[in-house]
Amino acid sequence: MITTDFIQSVRWEKDHIILLDQQKLPHQTDFLKLTTIESVWESIHSLQVRGAPAIGIAAAFGLALWATKFQGDSVEDFKKELKNQKDYLATSRPTAVNLFWAIERVENAAASAQTVEAARDAVVKEALLIQKEDEEVCRSIGEYGLSLLKDGDTVLTHCNAGGIATARYGTALAPFYIAKEKGMSLSAFATETRPVLQGSRLTAWELERIGIDVTLITDNMAAHVLKNKKISAIIVGTDRIAANGDTANKIGTLGLAVLAKTFDIPFYVASPLSTIDLAVPTGDDIPIEERSPDEVTHLNGQRIAAENISIYNPAFDVTPHEYITGIITEKGIISGNFAEELQKIKTN
Amino acid sequence: MITTDFIQSVRWEKDHIILLDQQKLPHQTDFLKLTTIESVWESIHSLQVRGAPAIGIAAAFGLALWATKFQGDSVEDFKKELKNQKDYLATSRPTAVNLFWAIERVENAAASAQTVEAARDAVVKEALLIQKEDEEVCRSIGEYGLSLLKDGDTVLTHCNAGGIATARYGTALAPFYIAKEKGMSLSAFATETRPVLQGSRLTAWELERIGIDVTLITDNMAAHVLKNKKISAIIVGTDRIAANGDTANKIGTLGLAVLAKTFDIPFYVASPLSTIDLAVPTGDDIPIEERSPDEVTHLNGQRIAAENISIYNPAFDVTPHEYITGIITEKGIISGNFAEELQKIKTN
Repeated sequence: MITTDFIQSVRWEKDHIILLDQQKLPHQTDFLKLTTIESVWESIHSLQVRGAPAIGIAAAFGLALWATKFQGDSVEDFKKELKNQKDYLATSRPTAVNLFWAIERVENAAASAQTVEAARDAVVKEALLIQKEDEEVCRSIGEYGLSLLKDGDTVLTHCNAGGIATARYGTALAPFYIAKEKGMSLSAFATETRPVLQGSRLTAWELERIGIDVTLITDNMAAHVLKNKKISAIIVGTDRIAANGDTANKIGTLGLAVLAKTFDIPFYVASPLSTIDLAVPTGDDIPIEERSPDEVTHLNGQRIAAENISIYNPAFDVTPHEYITGIITEKGIISGNFAEELQKIKTN
Repeated sequence: MITTDFIQSVRWEKDHIILLDQQKLPHQTDFLKLTTIESVWESIHSLQVRGAPAIGIAAAFGLALWATKFQGDSVEDFKKELKNQKDYLATSRPTAVNLFWAIERVENAAASAQTVEAARDAVVKEALLIQKEDEEVCRSIGEYGLSLLKDGDTVLTHCNAGGIATARYGTALAPFYIAKEKGMSLSAFATETRPVLQGSRLTAWELERIGIDVTLITDNMAAHVLKNKKISAIIVGTDRIAANGDTANKIGTLGLAVLAKTFDIPFYVASPLSTIDLAVPTGDDIPIEERSPDEVTHLNGQRIAAENISIYNPAFDVTPHEYITGIITEKGIISGNFAEELQKIKTN
């Protein structure tokens, strides 16, 4: 089924949040009604919402939900508790910087409020603004990304940095949406992205929905495909970029970047400026989330691996900046001296 | 459970073959009783028996099974039909050279027979000899392989080139068996090896059984592991080696070889001489089997991917010889000028 109907990952409904359950995709398009900040924490932790920008939006709405239900009348209590709730949400996923960035923005928005009412309004307004801005940012990333491609190109992507990982359009997938609008033809290879299969479940589903010719491969087929098929570029999203350009993204990204260099294929990272964390000097300083062994040993509740073995399940890896051809942001494409350029673009 | 009980992949029982059903591992250790050459063809095609040497042994026993049941009394008819049966078995898997090599050996063994009885005996004897020799070959590969390692080393391996892929010991896994015998301690990382999961189902199971500390990872974690964990070497098996050293092996091998070069880790291919095919000049001349899309889209009968998408499912890739540190054979370790060294070792 090809459709351009817009499926929104997170939606604010004043006293609750409607959240697309991405764990159920592609078989079911279920929406969850979240009424508490605890359920927002859980939805982030359990990957019902995922993708750095969408996590940030969901977390911001989580604080808005808490604010809406705050009972006291002391604005100081409100602010103190807002900080506690923010710190609580920050524990849901350790790697995604947009989470910390978004909840920080929400906290700051309430900082100068004189009443609980004003603080509450500021929190809700800021959360909605984060979502609105993200849509504009993704659109702009899509346009810059598309400028790197030509009609008929084939792009390989990993994991899902798509519309459902953001407010709309996605980051790595945004060029596909803009290409469709402009009548330009792009094809895609999607890596399935074990262990959670965001490529086969989400990216393949999302690109097929908008009529992109997408070919699914297992992660270990990427080398063969990059060597033997005409791949114009690799574009991936990111969960955090360090000040020197080192990029944390879904496990497997580093391998693709090394292969891209070997087979002389441009390797791009699509990233909102909010994902760039100048406070972190290099990739070595980015904490890498390790997730449950069950993600590797089980699928659909069934064990698929031998028993009594050790499992290593890092959710992310770090790609050193020297493997990155360019970082596609909403303000343009960064390349060359990443440390200098990132500093410049973030502080302008 | 740690045990050194020897589980044989294929066993000749005079009027039938007992074959370990590797598709059922690790959850069930089931053995199939095969009584016809057609069921042998099917067991090879469906991966119930897999691993280049084990496929060769099973195919040789398939011809022995046919020979045992041959009804005529014309030795010429026997030989003519033996060739037909050989050509038929050759269609079960296109990439594994040991299959062609083994059935060719069996056919040649009967070439000078004067009676059906003598031809039949020659076929059965040759099939049993292939199995016996393979055990000796694998043991020797294990000893040479171990000479490249030291106590405490950690080896990363892909797919399953283990005891159940051969007569015994395996090729890439043989050093682990020999290390156990010698009281040397090795650890392993096993890549799960999508789509058929030979790593998580077979290698992890096999190494755990003999008491090796084995850590399972998904295929796309290899780059992160090779960069950040102390991996002493990568050792893989092979399905066919061209005259110039280019090596066809399970999909994903090429990516590992590229990563090994980038992160300065020795990359070894463990291979019986029978897997070296001097008739094939380079890797470009090795046909790459493409398998059913279902292997990628389904697991345990359940669909795990989006609908209405294209699938690409090459079972093998080719690693150019320049990425290979050494080829571990039963006659020693080949490195340097592979074209020259392979020619020398095969014709000596």
